[in-house]
Amino acid sequence: MSLNKINLKDKLSKFSEHWSPRIIAEMNDYQFKLAKIKGEFVWHDHKDTDEVFIVIEGTMSIEFRDGIVDLSEGELCVVPKGIEHKPYAENECKIMLVEPRGVTNTGDAESEFTASNDVWV
Amino acid sequence: MSLNKINLKDKLSKFSEHWSPRIIAEMNDYQFKLAKIKGEFVWHDHKDTDEVFIVIEGTMSIEFRDGIVDLSEGELCVVPKGIEHKPYAENECKIMLVEPRGVTNTGDAESEFTASNDVWV
Repeated sequence: MSLNKINLKDKLSKFSEHWSPRIIAEMNDYQFKLAKIKGEFVWHDHKDTDEVFIVIEGTMSIEFRDGIVDLSEGELCVVPKGIEHKPYAENECKIMLVEPRGVTNTGDAESEFTASNDVWV
Repeated sequence: MSLNKINLKDKLSKFSEHWSPRIIAEMNDYQFKLAKIKGEFVWHDHKDTDEVFIVIEGTMSIEFRDGIVDLSEGELCVVPKGIEHKPYAENECKIMLVEPRGVTNTGDAESEFTASNDVWV
């Protein structure tokens, strides 16, 4: 069993790449990931799963085809499965993602932003 | 679809009862819940699922049969399924829980602390 605690800011200090989620914990077949984001991501969706964004530090937006959600520290947004979205952050923003094991950051939209979905920090 | 964002501190301001988790979001068949805790909870486990604790504000401890984990703001702990644990907070602590829909706070250990597992805030 794991009796370890995970300190989010400590884990965030261990990497600097943008748009490259790092796994910090697993709960059943779900994963908690940290990411640093800056600039504009690609439009994509996740056909089989919802995805949760939680802002740890900074501000970001998630653009949907029919609107935009602005998120600040301590705010959470559930992106429903199959819904196209495009994350954006003017300045670097630190976020936590929660989603099933094996989800790729760009969904089916392979691009220069497509990152490994199996890197721990 | 839900384009809403959820502000954790705003949701936390809407209830005051201790040991009474409130659902704030669903992702697939998992739920994000907020709780305010103070004092000593009961020993219990969740036979079928892991459970994640994230401290939003304050400090708490999770006692296990073979050790204790102290958690502060911005720290996360995964309690593995079937592992007995007893949360504790000397002063009020505000936390977020992530677990499958339908999990009861005291597991199989029905007690005065057993709360509804279907209350949203």
